[in-house]
Amino acid sequence: MARGIVTLTTDFGLADPYVGIMKGVILGVAPRARIVDLTHQIQPFEIAEAGFVIWQSWRYFPAGTVHVVVVDPGVGTLRRPILAEAGGHYFLGPDNGVFSMIFDELPHKVREVTAEAFFLKPVSRTFHGRDVFAPVAARLARGLSPARLGKLIRDYARQEFFKPVRSGKRIWTGTVLRADRFGNLITNFRLSEFPTVATRPFLLRAGLETITRLAGTFAEVPPGELALVEGSTGYLEIVMNQASAARKLGCGPGSPLELTLY
Amino acid sequence: MARGIVTLTTDFGLADPYVGIMKGVILGVAPRARIVDLTHQIQPFEIAEAGFVIWQSWRYFPAGTVHVVVVDPGVGTLRRPILAEAGGHYFLGPDNGVFSMIFDELPHKVREVTAEAFFLKPVSRTFHGRDVFAPVAARLARGLSPARLGKLIRDYARQEFFKPVRSGKRIWTGTVLRADRFGNLITNFRLSEFPTVATRPFLLRAGLETITRLAGTFAEVPPGELALVEGSTGYLEIVMNQASAARKLGCGPGSPLELTLY
Amino acid sequence: MARGIVTLTTDFGLADPYVGIMKGVILGVAPRARIVDLTHQIQPFEIAEAGFVIWQSWRYFPAGTVHVVVVDPGVGTLRRPILAEAGGHYFLGPDNGVFSMIFDELPHKVREVTAEAFFLKPVSRTFHGRDVFAPVAARLARGLSPARLGKLIRDYARQEFFKPVRSGKRIWTGTVLRADRFGNLITNFRLSEFPTVATRPFLLRAGLETITRLAGTFAEVPPGELALVEGSTGYLEIVMNQASAARKLGCGPGSPLELTLY
Repeated sequence: MARGIVTLTTDFGLADPYVGIMKGVILGVAPRARIVDLTHQIQPFEIAEAGFVIWQSWRYFPAGTVHVVVVDPGVGTLRRPILAEAGGHYFLGPDNGVFSMIFDELPHKVREVTAEAFFLKPVSRTFHGRDVFAPVAARLARGLSPARLGKLIRDYARQEFFKPVRSGKRIWTGTVLRADRFGNLITNFRLSEFPTVATRPFLLRAGLETITRLAGTFAEVPPGELALVEGSTGYLEIVMNQASAARKLGCGPGSPLELTLY
Repeated sequence: MARGIVTLTTDFGLADPYVGIMKGVILGVAPRARIVDLTHQIQPFEIAEAGFVIWQSWRYFPAGTVHVVVVDPGVGTLRRPILAEAGGHYFLGPDNGVFSMIFDELPHKVREVTAEAFFLKPVSRTFHGRDVFAPVAARLARGLSPARLGKLIRDYARQEFFKPVRSGKRIWTGTVLRADRFGNLITNFRLSEFPTVATRPFLLRAGLETITRLAGTFAEVPPGELALVEGSTGYLEIVMNQASAARKLGCGPGSPLELTLY
Repeated sequence: MARGIVTLTTDFGLADPYVGIMKGVILGVAPRARIVDLTHQIQPFEIAEAGFVIWQSWRYFPAGTVHVVVVDPGVGTLRRPILAEAGGHYFLGPDNGVFSMIFDELPHKVREVTAEAFFLKPVSRTFHGRDVFAPVAARLARGLSPARLGKLIRDYARQEFFKPVRSGKRIWTGTVLRADRFGNLITNFRLSEFPTVATRPFLLRAGLETITRLAGTFAEVPPGELALVEGSTGYLEIVMNQASAARKLGCGPGSPLELTLY
């Protein structure tokens, strides 16, 4: 099923050549691989942010795509490299729970990647993106069978990310997952899980403000006002019309939210 | 004429995975497309800036290239997606005037893109880059005939960008179009339209300074002094030699300029 | 040996479309070239920084790769474009010493690039990345023989970069080469040249602190403490465990270091 696409998600930034070096390694093994950057601006070591990004993105790629995520506070320790298969895609990264949102949603198999024959030698202790993940991703992109990489495991790491918590009879406590470049605040409330937001009154507390409106799109929001829209990921986002909700509210990733349904 | 190249110009930034997601959609439809980023750091909603960037860039690509510009304050409203053909290239984006500089310069045809069969379903109300422009660009890159996308229209949006205005007998009022990373200030005066700058005295007021020198290249400018050079786009740029004219003058995009010719 | 890969290292940043324009020119000449960005965030005109990045990166690409470096304070002057061949790779850029670290390490041949037939016409005086280096790189990626580009020269520029200096009986003075995104400080001390750091006591002064520990990897460093690790380039790096050594020390590129060996 491999079509030779590799996506990269890291916290390496773009000022250093680390991402380019990974691409050099990939193209050395798989000269025809197509490499797509998702983002390299994950906050350093923010596994949860990387987990949200890959969950949000993988489904827009063709089946057989290899998704490499290198946000890896434990690099150089005994934490294992893993390969997960889910939804017809490959997910390659450290065993630190970064794929938990995908595991929550889809049947999946996970292998520990032990086939050191495919690693770049010597494996450095600080840059497994280059020495482990890039060459293994390239092998997969060329069609290597996952079974060649290592055995199935069951004790891989999982984390509970991003779930709203019931904190009262009709009250849920949530959080801001991300602020995007426009200042839209992606919340951890999914419209599909809180469908009455679309049909009945609600009240969302954020910062010092209260939001009571669900809009169909940004342009429907009156200037200067805050509203919710269903974002492109299915999560509700706090937005303004051509202005920054993040700045208006003083909120960002991790800011608490409280949703009351009536 | 299609050679399968797609360029992307957006205000999405690179911290979010939105650009990568568009690439996933494109590669799903057109696995051999070559995708080139022009910039994703257009100031949010700055149609004029995006219009200048695409005008400056398209001509360096081979004929048949598909140029996608998504700077779209009206996403989710009734504003139409359009496809323009000009100079042997394709230009795909919202109908908000972003291609006006190209229309001013070249014969062109414009279609409203109505062929929803090619859109990603359901079309979100917030991310037409992914759901409309990416899949349509990919079809064009694969050689789809533009006529399959929709009918020719004449009432597409145009804007007057960036033209200097005569404000006295020998005086023209202009503006700074962009500051680049080096602090060079790209003005809206084209040397070809003001050729006497090269042959006779002139005086350009910018910030609190007055510039009277046209240099052939940066290295000719004495340290600490300001000068004009003809930039790579044909527009005059205010520059210093290995220093930032933008910082020296306190000027940036939109700053007023006054050119006096003698 | 050409496999059609072109890497790009510039100080152009990503806000302007200059890098994308270079890619358009390359793809126009070599439609199948694979283009990889190393970084475009070299500090403006910092030849030494660019020289370190390309030295650090080239070896991870397949033989025959064309490495283009455009950090070029002298653009538009008489400084020559050069093509170097070393280690089975091509290095293309201005003759300003940017490839000195590679010349120090490998046998090499250098040509002045004089074959104007391959340049984009007219050659601007401000953007040789587009008009000279991109089209020439594309020719090389398509398999053009280097001899077609110009004659071998011997008087190309070289610079002494980055060498620690002996300043006492057991004391060496060095410098910080780069700070990466995580705040790790890459020093100009290579473990292979100072191997006793691994086996005997040492003392590295940086900022107001003194570092006495060599760790195998980040995770071995106790929270809040500074240590050295051998980075992925072979140079010693001053690091903290999931924290920024650069911020802790107030150091960055160019900060002085003093290493005492016992």
